Amino acid sequence: MDHRVLIVFLLLWSSAHRMKEPSSTPHSCSQDQEGPSTTMAPLSYSSQSRRCVEASGTYGFTMRKESRIIRWIRWIVIVTALLLLGFIIGWCAKPTHPNTANKSTSSQYLKELLEGMQPDQIKQHLRKFTRLPHLAGTEQNLRYAEQIMKEWLEFGLDTVEMVPYDVLLSYPNKSQPNYISIVDQFGSEVFNTSLAEPVPEGYEDVSDIVPPYSAFSAKGQPEGDLVYVNYGRTEDFSQLEKEMGINVTGNIVIVRYGKIFRGNKVKNAMLAGAKGIIMFSDPADYCAAGVQSYPDGWNLPGGGAQRGNVLNLNGAGDPLTPGYPAKEYTYRLGLEDGVGLPKIPVHPIGYDDAIHLLKNMGGQIPPNYWKGTLDVSYRIGPGFTDDFKSQKVRMNIHTNNQVTRIYNVIGRIRGALEPDRYVILGGHRDAWVFGGIDPMSGAAVVHETVRSFGLLLSKGWRPRRTLVFASWDAEEFGLQGSTEWAEDNAKLLQERAVAYINADSAIEGMYTLRVDCTPSLHTLVYDLTKQIGSPEEGEEGVSLYESWHKRDNWTNDRDAPRISKLGSGSDFEAYFIRLGIAAARARYTKNKKTEWYSSYPVYHSVYETFEIVEKFYDPTFKRLRAVAQVRGGLVFQLADSQLLPLDVNQYADSLGKYAQSIAQLAQRHPEEMKMYEVSFDSLFSAVENISIAARDFHERLQTLNRADPLQVRIMNDQLMYLERAFIDPLGLPGRPFYRHVIFAPSSHNKYAGESFPGIYDALFDIKNSADPEKAWEEVKRQISIAAFTVHAAAMTLTPPA
Amino acid sequence: MDHRVLIVFLLLWSSAHRMKEPSSTPHSCSQDQEGPSTTMAPLSYSSQSRRCVEASGTYGFTMRKESRIIRWIRWIVIVTALLLLGFIIGWCAKPTHPNTANKSTSSQYLKELLEGMQPDQIKQHLRKFTRLPHLAGTEQNLRYAEQIMKEWLEFGLDTVEMVPYDVLLSYPNKSQPNYISIVDQFGSEVFNTSLAEPVPEGYEDVSDIVPPYSAFSAKGQPEGDLVYVNYGRTEDFSQLEKEMGINVTGNIVIVRYGKIFRGNKVKNAMLAGAKGIIMFSDPADYCAAGVQSYPDGWNLPGGGAQRGNVLNLNGAGDPLTPGYPAKEYTYRLGLEDGVGLPKIPVHPIGYDDAIHLLKNMGGQIPPNYWKGTLDVSYRIGPGFTDDFKSQKVRMNIHTNNQVTRIYNVIGRIRGALEPDRYVILGGHRDAWVFGGIDPMSGAAVVHETVRSFGLLLSKGWRPRRTLVFASWDAEEFGLQGSTEWAEDNAKLLQERAVAYINADSAIEGMYTLRVDCTPSLHTLVYDLTKQIGSPEEGEEGVSLYESWHKRDNWTNDRDAPRISKLGSGSDFEAYFIRLGIAAARARYTKNKKTEWYSSYPVYHSVYETFEIVEKFYDPTFKRLRAVAQVRGGLVFQLADSQLLPLDVNQYADSLGKYAQSIAQLAQRHPEEMKMYEVSFDSLFSAVENISIAARDFHERLQTLNRADPLQVRIMNDQLMYLERAFIDPLGLPGRPFYRHVIFAPSSHNKYAGESFPGIYDALFDIKNSADPEKAWEEVKRQISIAAFTVHAAAMTLTPPA
Repeated sequence: MDHRVLIVFLLLWSSAHRMKEPSSTPHSCSQDQEGPSTTMAPLSYSSQSRRCVEASGTYGFTMRKESRIIRWIRWIVIVTALLLLGFIIGWCAKPTHPNTANKSTSSQYLKELLEGMQPDQIKQHLRKFTRLPHLAGTEQNLRYAEQIMKEWLEFGLDTVEMVPYDVLLSYPNKSQPNYISIVDQFGSEVFNTSLAEPVPEGYEDVSDIVPPYSAFSAKGQPEGDLVYVNYGRTEDFSQLEKEMGINVTGNIVIVRYGKIFRGNKVKNAMLAGAKGIIMFSDPADYCAAGVQSYPDGWNLPGGGAQRGNVLNLNGAGDPLTPGYPAKEYTYRLGLEDGVGLPKIPVHPIGYDDAIHLLKNMGGQIPPNYWKGTLDVSYRIGPGFTDDFKSQKVRMNIHTNNQVTRIYNVIGRIRGALEPDRYVILGGHRDAWVFGGIDPMSGAAVVHETVRSFGLLLSKGWRPRRTLVFASWDAEEFGLQGSTEWAEDNAKLLQERAVAYINADSAIEGMYTLRVDCTPSLHTLVYDLTKQIGSPEEGEEGVSLYESWHKRDNWTNDRDAPRISKLGSGSDFEAYFIRLGIAAARARYTKNKKTEWYSSYPVYHSVYETFEIVEKFYDPTFKRLRAVAQVRGGLVFQLADSQLLPLDVNQYADSLGKYAQSIAQLAQRHPEEMKMYEVSFDSLFSAVENISIAARDFHERLQTLNRADPLQVRIMNDQLMYLERAFIDPLGLPGRPFYRHVIFAPSSHNKYAGESFPGIYDALFDIKNSADPEKAWEEVKRQISIAAFTVHAAAMTLTPPA
Repeated sequence: MDHRVLIVFLLLWSSAHRMKEPSSTPHSCSQDQEGPSTTMAPLSYSSQSRRCVEASGTYGFTMRKESRIIRWIRWIVIVTALLLLGFIIGWCAKPTHPNTANKSTSSQYLKELLEGMQPDQIKQHLRKFTRLPHLAGTEQNLRYAEQIMKEWLEFGLDTVEMVPYDVLLSYPNKSQPNYISIVDQFGSEVFNTSLAEPVPEGYEDVSDIVPPYSAFSAKGQPEGDLVYVNYGRTEDFSQLEKEMGINVTGNIVIVRYGKIFRGNKVKNAMLAGAKGIIMFSDPADYCAAGVQSYPDGWNLPGGGAQRGNVLNLNGAGDPLTPGYPAKEYTYRLGLEDGVGLPKIPVHPIGYDDAIHLLKNMGGQIPPNYWKGTLDVSYRIGPGFTDDFKSQKVRMNIHTNNQVTRIYNVIGRIRGALEPDRYVILGGHRDAWVFGGIDPMSGAAVVHETVRSFGLLLSKGWRPRRTLVFASWDAEEFGLQGSTEWAEDNAKLLQERAVAYINADSAIEGMYTLRVDCTPSLHTLVYDLTKQIGSPEEGEEGVSLYESWHKRDNWTNDRDAPRISKLGSGSDFEAYFIRLGIAAARARYTKNKKTEWYSSYPVYHSVYETFEIVEKFYDPTFKRLRAVAQVRGGLVFQLADSQLLPLDVNQYADSLGKYAQSIAQLAQRHPEEMKMYEVSFDSLFSAVENISIAARDFHERLQTLNRADPLQVRIMNDQLMYLERAFIDPLGLPGRPFYRHVIFAPSSHNKYAGESFPGIYDALFDIKNSADPEKAWEEVKRQISIAAFTVHAAAMTLTPPA
């Protein structure tokens, strides 16, 4: 109720008072006979009504009659006034929309959500879902799906469904194991790599542990000389060829894991003409200093190896149904046309096996060149040392591609006011083996988040918007479960999805928080982490924000914890890069300044167990709880805030930085820039437009009438659709499913995010372009597309008409 | 206010009455001293208060005190009750949204809008804008744009802006005219076609009449034998080659206008290897029986010829900036890479000239083959008759492509409640010469519509949603103005556009109404035309619907006026086929059953004057008024109805018919269907899904709480986005800007609309496919895409969570 009501009340009151003081009028009765009239105004009405009892006779009757009329009038006025007053109060008290969110109630519920999350519960969830291997497409992974569905329903979700797809997966042939051999001049295999990793203690009786393999490897038994190409990056291959004159065509390539996504290594090897590629985990990349191998520490044992798919899908999802969900009726490409399938055999080995292959290589190694830490002299190849001149390497790969049914579990809490706005928390369930870290540390966190949301529901809470929880399948085979569901629901998602929060592995180190997200979510991440406690020992009462800030400040120019761009390699890809839905991921990480190993040492090995988390990564499970609070808090705020907590100013700021940075990259070629008349002016001008539009938008937000549900919805739609505005349906050159003009996975490393990827790729290695004019024309075309897109995004923020 | 309020009122009243009858209680005072107590309940309160005046002393005081307490309580109860009652009334009386539309007011305004449109005004607009030629890219077309902008502002639009683009246009070379010659063995030109059309009376002093030409023709002077290929359709070329063994490679082709879009003829000629193509207007196709030539009638004179572009853009807009708006900073392709530009010279001629070329052709003509009505014996060619054996045909084409500035005029009426929902009425302004019919009969109608909306605005009306009025430029050059603006605003339009109503030529005949639209608009078109009067003489009091129904009933299975699918060839293309915005076009047309000529005889000639409309097509201008009422009424209803007047049931019905029809087409190949296991089951199942979803949706609409603005918006969004759900960002094969899975312009005739175009094209001429297995695989893939799309569209109609 506002001041106007009080004013109306006072006015009415005074007019009523004027009515009861008619002493000078001829028809007035005598004064009140009773004692001192009360000062309590409302009650003076009753004392007023005791006047004319003695009046009688005609005159008296007339008087009585007239006074009665006056009384009537008086009463009508009073009754009317009271009714009117009530009416006004009622009118004003009624919210314009009956369910307008109450901010303080919402933040109380947020507090309860965060407090509801329990380390012990997370521990139990993790224990429960890591007892057995649950590779995508296996019976056990379906069982876990069913269990999750059952428990989510018990936790109180409105609906939970199982959504199947039939996608192309890849498994080793059980009767013909994969391995690598050294063969002598008689064709005999004088050394074979191991067929499996030594099984960790406590899991000896477990069957169905898939041995290390490269999913989607081509079949074959190529034989050839071995050439070492460091990390297998573009620059490694070109250095080999250009600086050392070594051609890998027809040879087998061996590279170490790390730095870039393994699929990119395989692609590079194929482009270089290799017959096959072997990938190994070098202790330099997979062992931390001073740490023991599992089970005594968390380093990778020599017998451990990294599984993983070696696809180059570029966001296509199921290789046989690009662009469409892999349903029963869906048309499937032939295997020969499948997207991103490597044409050569690929296999992963551990460093115990790698030593045997590497130590026998011939050739010379220049000083300071690709120094690894394996206790052997690295050689470049091809060929083996003189002692073994006639020896070759043979790969024996029998892995099969197979269309297989997978299952996503999708749970929902229906939104109270805007059921057609979706906030999604999704993470995968399938694991290479036990998935102790990847993905079950994340899945346990989602499970606990769902449980805690269930508690809120039981207290009568319901979010403004719809919450969607997803347990994806077959992430390890190319993000297939999440991508197929995105394809299936694309039309709904592009109109309705507010944000996608990813929930893969919740922990990869013991140092601090790591967040990668779209720029518009930075502010929310900061605000939220200030409301969450640090999980670190000795930091009681310290916020997660402070703890994180202390350990990983942005850069010199910004005093806040570092947040990075999203790359890919996890399930947010289709949502963010293809559909343009604001996205974020959060996990606990290592100290990048001192810990140089890739991801975490036991990544994708059999040693990713429950115990490695319990003993080393998070014995109190408080780090996982903190990650749960971040992920759960994000979806809570996105689903329940009346105004979407998206910061368009921050997006504009980031665009300015990305534009600066890509222009600087181009400026390394000042002569060509001049010769081909390449200018970034249009892009900078677009960035200025969006900065102004974003500032104005935030100003208008300040004066928004929050009681008007349509006005609120209109501005929320502008906030929601900003990310969508960066989508170009034509996609990036050669990558039709990477449609985000601002962000894409690097063409050279799927894990890394590139800003203005179209321009970046056009500039990549442009010095060596065969047709420089054409190459610079493409740079200009890409600048033009970027400028248009940013400008068009700015227009979405201006008043809609 | 509902019944609950009355009930509360009565309850309060009775409790108040119970309070005032405390006679049996020990502390009660005596009965009322006054005369018979009134039966008027409210006033009995005052009589009640006259009781205990005699009371005095301790007892009396106590009594007085106690009765006072009772009185106080009584008063508190009464005051509270009154306040509460008022409160409840106020609460209930307040609409949930202050501006909830009042349906009857809206239909009153619709009536006023329709009545506001005046035949005389339309006549004046048409007269005003057809005095001078106003080809796209010329000074005069900019002047008209400025005038329209000025007048729209005067009419009262909130904003009007001029939006320029720099696109590729094409003009004849003024110093080197285009013509066709017959050359003799010495290379002398023994006959030349005319350089211009005879100028109609009254326009003799007009300069800047562009002579007939084919815009975007390649330059060149090819010489060769002439081959007649009828209408130049795919089937004409294949008949020529397969049945008659005539190859056109290296020859010049002559075809008659009509049946298909001229750009398709040119493409077919190029594919067949022709060096050049001449198109002529045959009297069989451009003269109505019993009608005189202009100016004595509305037939095409022998010296008239049809201008027109000969592009194959497939929706790309500006050929140099496909996918992006042609702004100053936009990257432009080189001319050699421009989309859809023909590689051979093309030229149009009238039938006076055509006779000279045709009558000298050699070769034989089989009986009943391609019978035209020109008074010459048609020959097939190549070569001329024996008398002229050594003669050849030479084309002299010097037309230039040129990047030129064009101007759209965009006017807006801001929506009162949902400014972020757009309803667009757009039509082009550029004309080949005067544009008497094409497009100014349409532009005059838009002008009058804007004027009439302005009158409503001056009466205080404002639509619920935003109205956008567009005067497009360069439609004649490949729908460029409208397509560039669609590209420029794609991000806004795909989130916000409710519908696009097209306003090209408003009249092409004198018979009845013609409507092409998306299925969801059928019902609105029927409802609206019932509220509009027939413009035909002798049909006073008859509705447009009845008049139309009588003349053009659907088919046997449906008793309603015929409505057709949208094809292309006008500015709705980018909005409907690329962006998936519900669209419609309406015009007055001829009687298709008796009038066989293409479009209308003087189409794209200099004889499209104001006078041809005034004298022949619509002397009273009532037909144009009726078209204005249809177009204006459609945008009114779409912008102002609380619930969007889109009928999703009708869409589902139509999909069922299209599915039947495409399945029947495939069933012409029953053996192949069996051999390659082709089935339409998935498509039929998807159609069933959408039929059920649509029915359920309409049922839910019945129970929608219309007082809840969010619930209304949510269902409106479902209605709006249904059309969008048919868009596939991957586009149709080879046509990336045709993205609508249900409708596309035919690949063989841009003017015609094809349903399930992906399947249709895959089936086209499949009998003659070089690789039948691959061809049928493509059919299966397209069925799968169609089934998915329809199914996904069905999902958008289910409850959102």
